[in-house]
Amino acid sequence: MAENRKRVLIVGGVAGGASCAARLRRLDEAAEIVVFERGPYVSFANCGLPYHVGNVIPEEKSLLVASAELFRQRFRIDVRTRHEVTAIDRAKHEISVTNLETGSVARERYDALVLAPGAAPVRPPLPGLDLSGIFTLRTIPDSRAIREWIDGHAVQRATIVGAGFIGLEMAENLAARGIRVSMVEMLSQVLPPLDPEMAVYVAERLRERGVELHLDDAVASFESSDRPGLVVSTRSGKRIETEMVVLSIGVRPETTLARDAGLASGSRGGIAVDDRMQTSDPAIWAVGDAVEVRDVVSGQEAVVPLAGPANRQGRIAAAAITGHPGHFRGVQATAVCGAFGLTAALTGASEKSLRRAGITTYQKVYLHPNQHAGYYPGATPIRLKLLFDPKDGRLLGAQAVGASGVEKRIDVLAMALQMGATVHDLAEAELCYAPQYGSAKDPVNLAGMVAVNALEGLAPLARWEDVQPGQTFLLDVREPSEFAAGAVENARNVPLGQLRDRLGELPRDRELWVYCGVGQRAHSACRLLAQNGFAVRNISGGFLTWRAYQAAARLASPSPSGPGRV
Amino acid sequence: MAENRKRVLIVGGVAGGASCAARLRRLDEAAEIVVFERGPYVSFANCGLPYHVGNVIPEEKSLLVASAELFRQRFRIDVRTRHEVTAIDRAKHEISVTNLETGSVARERYDALVLAPGAAPVRPPLPGLDLSGIFTLRTIPDSRAIREWIDGHAVQRATIVGAGFIGLEMAENLAARGIRVSMVEMLSQVLPPLDPEMAVYVAERLRERGVELHLDDAVASFESSDRPGLVVSTRSGKRIETEMVVLSIGVRPETTLARDAGLASGSRGGIAVDDRMQTSDPAIWAVGDAVEVRDVVSGQEAVVPLAGPANRQGRIAAAAITGHPGHFRGVQATAVCGAFGLTAALTGASEKSLRRAGITTYQKVYLHPNQHAGYYPGATPIRLKLLFDPKDGRLLGAQAVGASGVEKRIDVLAMALQMGATVHDLAEAELCYAPQYGSAKDPVNLAGMVAVNALEGLAPLARWEDVQPGQTFLLDVREPSEFAAGAVENARNVPLGQLRDRLGELPRDRELWVYCGVGQRAHSACRLLAQNGFAVRNISGGFLTWRAYQAAARLASPSPSGPGRV
Repeated sequence: MAENRKRVLIVGGVAGGASCAARLRRLDEAAEIVVFERGPYVSFANCGLPYHVGNVIPEEKSLLVASAELFRQRFRIDVRTRHEVTAIDRAKHEISVTNLETGSVARERYDALVLAPGAAPVRPPLPGLDLSGIFTLRTIPDSRAIREWIDGHAVQRATIVGAGFIGLEMAENLAARGIRVSMVEMLSQVLPPLDPEMAVYVAERLRERGVELHLDDAVASFESSDRPGLVVSTRSGKRIETEMVVLSIGVRPETTLARDAGLASGSRGGIAVDDRMQTSDPAIWAVGDAVEVRDVVSGQEAVVPLAGPANRQGRIAAAAITGHPGHFRGVQATAVCGAFGLTAALTGASEKSLRRAGITTYQKVYLHPNQHAGYYPGATPIRLKLLFDPKDGRLLGAQAVGASGVEKRIDVLAMALQMGATVHDLAEAELCYAPQYGSAKDPVNLAGMVAVNALEGLAPLARWEDVQPGQTFLLDVREPSEFAAGAVENARNVPLGQLRDRLGELPRDRELWVYCGVGQRAHSACRLLAQNGFAVRNISGGFLTWRAYQAAARLASPSPSGPGRV
Repeated sequence: MAENRKRVLIVGGVAGGASCAARLRRLDEAAEIVVFERGPYVSFANCGLPYHVGNVIPEEKSLLVASAELFRQRFRIDVRTRHEVTAIDRAKHEISVTNLETGSVARERYDALVLAPGAAPVRPPLPGLDLSGIFTLRTIPDSRAIREWIDGHAVQRATIVGAGFIGLEMAENLAARGIRVSMVEMLSQVLPPLDPEMAVYVAERLRERGVELHLDDAVASFESSDRPGLVVSTRSGKRIETEMVVLSIGVRPETTLARDAGLASGSRGGIAVDDRMQTSDPAIWAVGDAVEVRDVVSGQEAVVPLAGPANRQGRIAAAAITGHPGHFRGVQATAVCGAFGLTAALTGASEKSLRRAGITTYQKVYLHPNQHAGYYPGATPIRLKLLFDPKDGRLLGAQAVGASGVEKRIDVLAMALQMGATVHDLAEAELCYAPQYGSAKDPVNLAGMVAVNALEGLAPLARWEDVQPGQTFLLDVREPSEFAAGAVENARNVPLGQLRDRLGELPRDRELWVYCGVGQRAHSACRLLAQNGFAVRNISGGFLTWRAYQAAARLASPSPSGPGRV
């Protein structure tokens, strides 16, 4: 065997690199496999770092999924940690490797090279960026440094820059340690992958739990404070006193090595690969956060730093190198984030991402179903938004926020989207039902049914953003008590139960835009009115979605006396 | 409108009947719609009854999903409770209806008739069946009677006949009230829809929690006891003293009305319908537990008493009657049951149901993945079994049991199965991952990957039931400490980490059947051995699945001193 043995070098030993190495061994017992990892650990649980900071995962060693020793013993893989690969000599099939402990440099020959360099946290060039107490969180040394800083400086106030998934997880975990958290986010919403009227549920929860949110703002500089600590100055002129800062603005693909070697990049700056994860050099493969992949919904290129795709890409590269089948089908960017008792998750396209891709022909529905039967204790609503193609009903994307049952529905919808399901398929889905788990009509079914009703012309939908104040005739079919407790300006209230007897009060010369609490009664009202000759539309998501739009708009332009003030 | 108005009569006002009525109104504002319901309530939450008995749902009124008054007011539907339809005069398009309060009989004309009579609990003709204290649980009066009996007789011991979904839910809810529960089940397993080596996890949990399980046994008679109470005698000669009995042997479709009217029945005894829910009489539709539908996996006829399909069938009948599109795609029998901290769920075919349908060409994999990242606190295993077609990898069915995350995976697999997904699709699925929700390789991905490895010939699978004691060469690649703590008889232990150095100890003249704890190390071992020239198979599910088989076999033939003894 030894004569033909292939020498495969892997740059990066986390997620994609580690998966690739292990599968390579399973597919090729003879190959010589060497993994070079710049950091001190391979195969660690990056996604667990915020929870280690928060003491939810108290032991650092819990994060070490597989040790170099295990790779050596079980897979006969040579893992070299604290080794940085600095250059690729493509002509000679060699890489230059620096041993970070000794400083010595070596050249290593490869038959196949796999790049799994990952991504690095963005560190914007701001004044004061190098002050002590300013952190990013990407590696085990990072989490160790943050924990030591918290303990060593008795941190009571922390500022998180960037309100994406990691930022929110950090906010929750710091708050769990009794630290007061401020967040600065450049956008006018938290959780940038979500649409603003969905992300607003999370923003409201953050405020309820005492997190100080500074949206639509950005850091201008960091300074040392007179008192021990830091002052974060923002572009809008706020000065936030704090004892530590965590930057969670996002990550950028680690492409220096690939670029310096002349490998092709994609349009979004990631390493270009084909669906076998092969780069522009046939002897080099690349996987994970550094590569550019195809978004299966928009068809556009994307750089998606997620562990799931990275692992699958590692497996595919291993198959490709050893001549086995398998190709990467692209990403649909399924993601989930838990914070302060809420779960937010999404799969496929958002409205924002569709617009970015130039796709405007989508339709959408909003729902607020409970996660399980309402008659079983503990029912809580899921805020659910579904995007679909009105041409054929094909699912384009889904977002959900709620206390429970959120990731289940997004996972079901992720599988549906992968398989090219239409909203008809969702309506017909046969999912688990017992009262503590779901409903006879699961939220996934309901979303499909609402969309099918719209597609079949039974209940044309309207969107809150299309309401013309003072012009659109708004009909609120909730009970008078609900109407009195809060309604949309200028709406006319005729409860559904009285509608048949009060048709004479409604205009026949213009379209009626109907809403209720969540959309269900409005659907019945629309059907009733349409069959009595009225032109009607159901405003999807009802009053609850209107409130979400209002709240999102308030976040986008906070009043100077609002909770965003320092 | 009134001149052309159609008169639609609906027999049965729960689930399918109620869904049909409400949608009929939305689709036809003019129609006259009358619902006849034999019981005192329409649209009640049948599936919540066990939890009402257990005081989890303390208020009976919580179970009333929609009242007759709401149907009248919101939908202008005439709901007549306590009215029993006794005959259909198909020639005259009339039904005979008895008012159960007054005894008066009337005839009612219909243009369209919908039968939604449901199913009735099976009451086997046993001596003593009519004694006080013997109950079934299907309606609100049933749950009221059980609650009153428990309170009025200070019940301390209850016997449940039938260990299906309702039986287990009753066991949990009675136990929650401090009642000692015995169960008598004719099969040698609990949860008949599951395969025995999957159901065994639930059986073991029942025993751990003090439920006395009498499997492979059946009730011979009920008698009054000397002390106030009952004695349940079983065919095997046991005498179980008890203060109440709940019969949960199953239900049979209520087909008397349809059969007496000469409507066609299917091969399984349900009312025959087409995919628009139309019976053999073009003016009569039927929906819900009483109809016979097509199983989408086996293609065979089935009677499946589940609320989800009933609701969708009701909607389809309403569409058919009013000339709107929609057809019923069949059932895949997705179901879930929670009891004593475990969730058991399944979708599509089981091995038992495949064999019943004469399908023997399936393959299967067993896995024991955690419901979320192992490094996050609270990780617990899911026992997962996947059935697929080795020809094209198409998913045929899945079963899962565990403390958490079970119904999510079965729902994802249900959607996959509905869409015709293969195990390749499962391997490539992009599901939610954060450490408290899942893993970078979700259990669904892992199941797909294991199956793909088998399909591609990388790791041929073996089944525990095919092991020939004393003949099959069993190789256990776990650590010596694990081996010492329990292993399969005659297995040879060579830990994976030492395997490369100890190849000489293994025979080359016969197939090695390899196992580890769950199948993962055995896979690596198989790959290693195969490439070194050995003939190998990975015994799917490893030692944990072997233990499940052993436990299931013990349940099937309990020793006289075992826990099954009275």
